Amino acid sequence: MRKDEVKKLLKEASIEEGDFIEIRTGGKTYRGMLLPSHAFSQSDIIIKLENGYNVGIVIDGPVSIKLIGKKSRAERGSRSTPHNGKKPTVSLIGTGGTIASRIDYATGAVHPASTSEEIALSVPEIFDICNLNAKVIFQKFGEDIAPSDWAKIAEETAKELNSGADGVIISHGTDTMSYTSAALSFMLKNLNGPVVLTGSQRSSDRPSSDAFQNLLASARVATSDLGEVAVVMHGTPSSGQCHIYRGTKVRKMHSSRRDAFRSINGHPLGFVDSRVHLFRGYRRKGNGEAIADTLLNTNVSLLYYYPNLDSDTFLRMVEGKEGVVIAGTGLGHVSNEIVKAIKEVAGEGTTVVMTTQCIWGRVNMNVYATGRRLIEAGVISGEDMLPETALVKLMWVLAHFEGDEIKKMMGKNIAGEISERMLYDAYPEQKKYMA
Amino acid sequence: MRKDEVKKLLKEASIEEGDFIEIRTGGKTYRGMLLPSHAFSQSDIIIKLENGYNVGIVIDGPVSIKLIGKKSRAERGSRSTPHNGKKPTVSLIGTGGTIASRIDYATGAVHPASTSEEIALSVPEIFDICNLNAKVIFQKFGEDIAPSDWAKIAEETAKELNSGADGVIISHGTDTMSYTSAALSFMLKNLNGPVVLTGSQRSSDRPSSDAFQNLLASARVATSDLGEVAVVMHGTPSSGQCHIYRGTKVRKMHSSRRDAFRSINGHPLGFVDSRVHLFRGYRRKGNGEAIADTLLNTNVSLLYYYPNLDSDTFLRMVEGKEGVVIAGTGLGHVSNEIVKAIKEVAGEGTTVVMTTQCIWGRVNMNVYATGRRLIEAGVISGEDMLPETALVKLMWVLAHFEGDEIKKMMGKNIAGEISERMLYDAYPEQKKYMA
Repeated sequence: MRKDEVKKLLKEASIEEGDFIEIRTGGKTYRGMLLPSHAFSQSDIIIKLENGYNVGIVIDGPVSIKLIGKKSRAERGSRSTPHNGKKPTVSLIGTGGTIASRIDYATGAVHPASTSEEIALSVPEIFDICNLNAKVIFQKFGEDIAPSDWAKIAEETAKELNSGADGVIISHGTDTMSYTSAALSFMLKNLNGPVVLTGSQRSSDRPSSDAFQNLLASARVATSDLGEVAVVMHGTPSSGQCHIYRGTKVRKMHSSRRDAFRSINGHPLGFVDSRVHLFRGYRRKGNGEAIADTLLNTNVSLLYYYPNLDSDTFLRMVEGKEGVVIAGTGLGHVSNEIVKAIKEVAGEGTTVVMTTQCIWGRVNMNVYATGRRLIEAGVISGEDMLPETALVKLMWVLAHFEGDEIKKMMGKNIAGEISERMLYDAYPEQKKYMA
Repeated sequence: MRKDEVKKLLKEASIEEGDFIEIRTGGKTYRGMLLPSHAFSQSDIIIKLENGYNVGIVIDGPVSIKLIGKKSRAERGSRSTPHNGKKPTVSLIGTGGTIASRIDYATGAVHPASTSEEIALSVPEIFDICNLNAKVIFQKFGEDIAPSDWAKIAEETAKELNSGADGVIISHGTDTMSYTSAALSFMLKNLNGPVVLTGSQRSSDRPSSDAFQNLLASARVATSDLGEVAVVMHGTPSSGQCHIYRGTKVRKMHSSRRDAFRSINGHPLGFVDSRVHLFRGYRRKGNGEAIADTLLNTNVSLLYYYPNLDSDTFLRMVEGKEGVVIAGTGLGHVSNEIVKAIKEVAGEGTTVVMTTQCIWGRVNMNVYATGRRLIEAGVISGEDMLPETALVKLMWVLAHFEGDEIKKMMGKNIAGEISERMLYDAYPEQKKYMA
């Protein structure tokens, strides 16, 4: 059905967004709250079912749409009361992710949610958990997020925490969420409240959307006593469980699944069902003022080694850079030819950090001859840091330290990015087949 | 103890490598077959225990070493009889991995195993499975393997299969094993026997070494009716089970664990316990001659996108290349700035293929605006191919096709590298926590 026809039908029935309606079409009956439509959706109408899921309905035949009540709108009116003194206050900082744009990640600037009322329309349940102040600081696709954005987010986050917010939720595109969470982990000090990044893998007009559950779980974590930067996303594909990932130890490991994020070389900080469960070892929030120390040296690059990489290409890639993170093979190796090229650039003062393209596991350059030659060439071990986390850390360290201090700081655990000892079981087990 | 003192003790007791001995030291008694020592080992003596495990013994006090019998040597003598007509014949091609060098990966050229007798000394059980012809074609660290080596291995493999071998085992460093397995998958056609790559994650003087079990499992697979290139390595960390991975769908995902290898976007081809279990969907070996079609265009590069990548660095990285594989974020995205740079190089004739740095999942550039701009710029979807597999495939395709055929072939499944449909469950599940 054409969008303007749908609009006309709704208008005739005096139905507005937020109203509780019944739709009969294609032999099926749907009841729920009418959500705003948006340009990108394939569906004609999107409603929020009573079980909390959203469903997009395609109308290609006779349809009847009935207003059941203005109920949810009235409810929303009372729920969005921003200052229930008994509840904690959470600030939601929108950066362009699905949730903060109220509708779809892809719609970008089309429907930015700039008030708590707009958020309430989609996820009124959040007001059972907290008072919410929403603010959209920019609207960007995840892949367009740059280091300057990390600084902006960090500054806004500290400002919110220092002006009364008990916690902060940052909605963010999932593509580069873990780069941002790593950056915030190094930039934000003395956290006096939880900082939670969340997003969604499925657009909100699909019944399988994870947007609402991720946001609700994030609100729960944002009102906990966590004093770290965390990513909160679906932990299992279909259960109601979200996992709480440490900002420096998380990576998007699947392009489309709802449980795309994985804890790497460490266990999650905890999980969320109807409440927050934090495991031992998390950092508690402190008192005093949160600090955003956002200075970065962005003149660094990240390079995954591959068998065909020649030294010319390598040298061009790192030309003029003050630092480079290499994701080597296995325990942290590159070919003999690249060892020589690294020696050259390291000798000229470029900081070279070795991580592993295996993603899981630790770098150990003491085991094999190649590793020992890399150490001799001045390469710094990235220990069990993710390549992406090491990249962000190197930007931060190069902006704050000089000379020998750089190596020292890269090897020192600042924000949970380096594990003291390897957690052998922090690697997903593979199926054992039965004969 | 000094190595020459150990040597002297052994000589006094008339003990040679392969003999069955008893060692008493530090209040413990060890019984087993004496294995060759090697320069890199921290241990003074390495023996193979009766349970099949190897153990390295450090002597730092009184010691008694006793010859129990020349038993194992005699046994080996009979076992290594190369032409037992009742058993299949397997060719082992050594390229520098742990097993073929008979001892440690790190020792490189020190102990190349160039005859079946030398292999037998370490893993005599293999002769219960097959007749073995071993040949060392070169001795390289995994990280030093280059595309020219892939060609050499492919040619040797075809030669062996076409001159009587029922199957081929290629021992290889684990660091770049999956690059080589992908290359062989594209190069080898009309396989008339299994081609199995194997290696080990732990040096053979450690009780936890996986070398022997991986080799035995590989021998079983090499005598099966598989007609594909496979990687056979530990599937679970401690059980006796090895997994059989399709050569184009496997990646080393841990720097040190024995079960480092993972099947990506597809299930393993099967598994091995005391016999080979192949799942439905594997390709059976054919008749006729195996063909090694080794032509590659190596003028390509692989680039993992990161938020700070600027177009200058990108353009330098792909300067003069005929092809580039990008591991973008999520469904296959890069920043707007890099989209423009890609448009530039694609317009000049460089083939650009998009994969995802998530590792798991499929590229889909039709979902978001960035993806659609990439398609307009001429970027080819890598579908659910691994970035590393796409790199190798692009080398092969650019050497064999021109013009529009390149795009067509990159999107076509040649060697199991592209799944027709996404296997949702081919992603390791994460723990569901209990409240």
